[in-house]
Amino acid sequence: MGGTIRGMSAPTYDTLLVDLDPDGIETITLNRPDALNSFTVTMARELEAEFRRLRTDDAVRAVVVTGAGKAYCAGMDLSADGNVFGLDEDAAPTAADLREHLTEEPYESGVRDTGGKVTLAIHECDKPVIAAINGAAVGIGATMTLAMDVRLASTKARIGFVFGRLGIVPEAASSYFLPRIVGLQTALEWVYAADILSAEEALEGRLLRSVHEPDELLPAALELARRFVTNRSPAALAMARRLLYAGSGSAHPLEAHRRDSLAMWHASVGDGKEGVAAFLGKRDPEFTGRASDVPDLG
Amino acid sequence: MGGTIRGMSAPTYDTLLVDLDPDGIETITLNRPDALNSFTVTMARELEAEFRRLRTDDAVRAVVVTGAGKAYCAGMDLSADGNVFGLDEDAAPTAADLREHLTEEPYESGVRDTGGKVTLAIHECDKPVIAAINGAAVGIGATMTLAMDVRLASTKARIGFVFGRLGIVPEAASSYFLPRIVGLQTALEWVYAADILSAEEALEGRLLRSVHEPDELLPAALELARRFVTNRSPAALAMARRLLYAGSGSAHPLEAHRRDSLAMWHASVGDGKEGVAAFLGKRDPEFTGRASDVPDLG
Amino acid sequence: MGGTIRGMSAPTYDTLLVDLDPDGIETITLNRPDALNSFTVTMARELEAEFRRLRTDDAVRAVVVTGAGKAYCAGMDLSADGNVFGLDEDAAPTAADLREHLTEEPYESGVRDTGGKVTLAIHECDKPVIAAINGAAVGIGATMTLAMDVRLASTKARIGFVFGRLGIVPEAASSYFLPRIVGLQTALEWVYAADILSAEEALEGRLLRSVHEPDELLPAALELARRFVTNRSPAALAMARRLLYAGSGSAHPLEAHRRDSLAMWHASVGDGKEGVAAFLGKRDPEFTGRASDVPDLG
Repeated sequence: MGGTIRGMSAPTYDTLLVDLDPDGIETITLNRPDALNSFTVTMARELEAEFRRLRTDDAVRAVVVTGAGKAYCAGMDLSADGNVFGLDEDAAPTAADLREHLTEEPYESGVRDTGGKVTLAIHECDKPVIAAINGAAVGIGATMTLAMDVRLASTKARIGFVFGRLGIVPEAASSYFLPRIVGLQTALEWVYAADILSAEEALEGRLLRSVHEPDELLPAALELARRFVTNRSPAALAMARRLLYAGSGSAHPLEAHRRDSLAMWHASVGDGKEGVAAFLGKRDPEFTGRASDVPDLG
Repeated sequence: MGGTIRGMSAPTYDTLLVDLDPDGIETITLNRPDALNSFTVTMARELEAEFRRLRTDDAVRAVVVTGAGKAYCAGMDLSADGNVFGLDEDAAPTAADLREHLTEEPYESGVRDTGGKVTLAIHECDKPVIAAINGAAVGIGATMTLAMDVRLASTKARIGFVFGRLGIVPEAASSYFLPRIVGLQTALEWVYAADILSAEEALEGRLLRSVHEPDELLPAALELARRFVTNRSPAALAMARRLLYAGSGSAHPLEAHRRDSLAMWHASVGDGKEGVAAFLGKRDPEFTGRASDVPDLG
Repeated sequence: MGGTIRGMSAPTYDTLLVDLDPDGIETITLNRPDALNSFTVTMARELEAEFRRLRTDDAVRAVVVTGAGKAYCAGMDLSADGNVFGLDEDAAPTAADLREHLTEEPYESGVRDTGGKVTLAIHECDKPVIAAINGAAVGIGATMTLAMDVRLASTKARIGFVFGRLGIVPEAASSYFLPRIVGLQTALEWVYAADILSAEEALEGRLLRSVHEPDELLPAALELARRFVTNRSPAALAMARRLLYAGSGSAHPLEAHRRDSLAMWHASVGDGKEGVAAFLGKRDPEFTGRASDVPDLG
């Protein structure tokens, strides 16, 4: 990891702790333990800001997200006065309004789902992101993890897509992610039932990659993150991440072939040369490509 | 469930029994037991009509579909005289013809797959739909259940995507649903092999949510339906159902974000207010939103 | 299988053995055993040519792909002099270039991913394809199997999406196939970790359909292929294969309904008549439809 430059210093946040270790693994800790890390407008803004910031910080190689104290994130903070959803009640938007205004460059408005702003930032961060679900993950606490790439949990985790109990809908683009992770039938049942799942149930349903003893969760997540980045090209990782998400929604493999061809071309004139040379020389590679330089794959 | 109004009276059908219980759970029983509930043009018309009717009947909160007697539905009734497929043999349609004419507002024609008319009506009904597969579910008897949200089966169920044995193809939009439920590899193998699967095999392949003793199947399906609707907003459920299906086919999470934002806005000025108030007041919610009022989510 | 005509004689290849048995099962053996069947530009051209050729050879009913000797395919042959990726380093393509030039009729160019040319040919071959993974399947050796319909492996198989170790990305349109087979979470972890999976791990992750003792692998693959084609209509099989892949990526079930309707119409005036007659007559069907006659389903 010798070539890693020390990143831009991360700003200080009110609701998050951010720590970057020498291997480039950034741990983001949701840090409102007295409120079970419940989700506020401030936390939303800070998560979005941090994932947008680290996208261009090449010192960050992978991200682990966990919660301080007993909970991961107990959902939206409903104790806030007034408009808990943060939406403009006078807006009366239509589907056509949203199609017109909400393009790939999301604009600010009074009708954008707050959780979705966060998960889109996670989706676009170009780094592997691992959820280390240490306790209750409910509502947005559950859906925010769906935009992360891999989910590990403690035996004490409890996960609930409980929106139906509140007369609302699963958000944060969860309808894109959840069926691709657990399949359509399980996604529908979990959302309809709006129950709290045990870690064991969530593992059986393939929402979780693995379940760990509480004090072994964060070490396992960090070790997995380290396996993802050690002797790896951050540019190739960023491109692979984009390819897999885009491919999961492509209508035809030819679309994937287009993106693959472009990504392979960039790799072939970049870190691929070093990768092949190192393999043939039976030595570790010294990659120099940066995630922040990856081109649009279309 | 006190606020539930008694629905428009369901029409009487030749091939279906329809029963609405006090909790708003409608049970549709395929009712040609002497013919193993095999699928006829009349049954197709009646299923399509009932699912289109109940979409706007707010007294119906969820639907359970099962079969009378030993079978669920033994497939297309091949004993019918003449054109068993119900298609116009002189039509000679092309892909361009179908793209031109068959838009989101399906038109009548001599070339539309009969099973697909039924599954599109199920898909668009805006209520949770549960299949209680009590016996043989073969051909259209199997594919019609794929458009339902959750599938439970009896230990006596036998499920077969047997189209290949007849020189025909899986229909009823099953190519949209099956890979999203069981994954692409299992879907391909089952369709190629065209075998009859035991309940155990179908459970292992994740087609079924659970398997039950024969006399416990319908109670289990009804109990699950009740869990889906008790203290729930029908408007939020309808929106969640649309979000999950649409999201499963979206090319990018931004599309889901658009629909989420619109659905959350409608929930935030509707049943979401009551949901939050009830949660904070530690009481059951009294939702007033109706599934029939849900806007187009785009 | 009496009606099967003897196919056009397959050309002789430098890197492949091709054998057609009396039931129409073609076995393609990757045949560079001294080099662990590693993938060369010649092998790519020959695989693409053979899958394009057999698409219109109605004597071929199904295909099994395996490797000679100990390995299945140990990945790209990195011992080749010069440009191992086979790409034009001066091209500097953009996403717009690829969108403009690379349409459904793939054109020759210096920037197309080599593995993708092979997997697109497999994807479009209109026959069931089974991978019999007898040993190491690494890099393109792993990704080429994703475009095949069903994967069986020997207990000695080792499968690795190892691209990240070389500073490159998963290719061969694998980003389209892998998430649909194993789900998004497993796909991301396997690609990030770039590890070599045991047959047991790959089975658990649902990449493999089944694992066999080494000397039982090829017989099991051939038997499965035989089950797929015996008493089956090649035309109906070809249409079913196209429907399932297309449906897996459709935005709405109405798109599947369009294709279904067209396919059912063609079956209803073709092998469907014989299929129904044979079923009612309790005899084996004598299908005459040809895969090479299947129309564009749109």
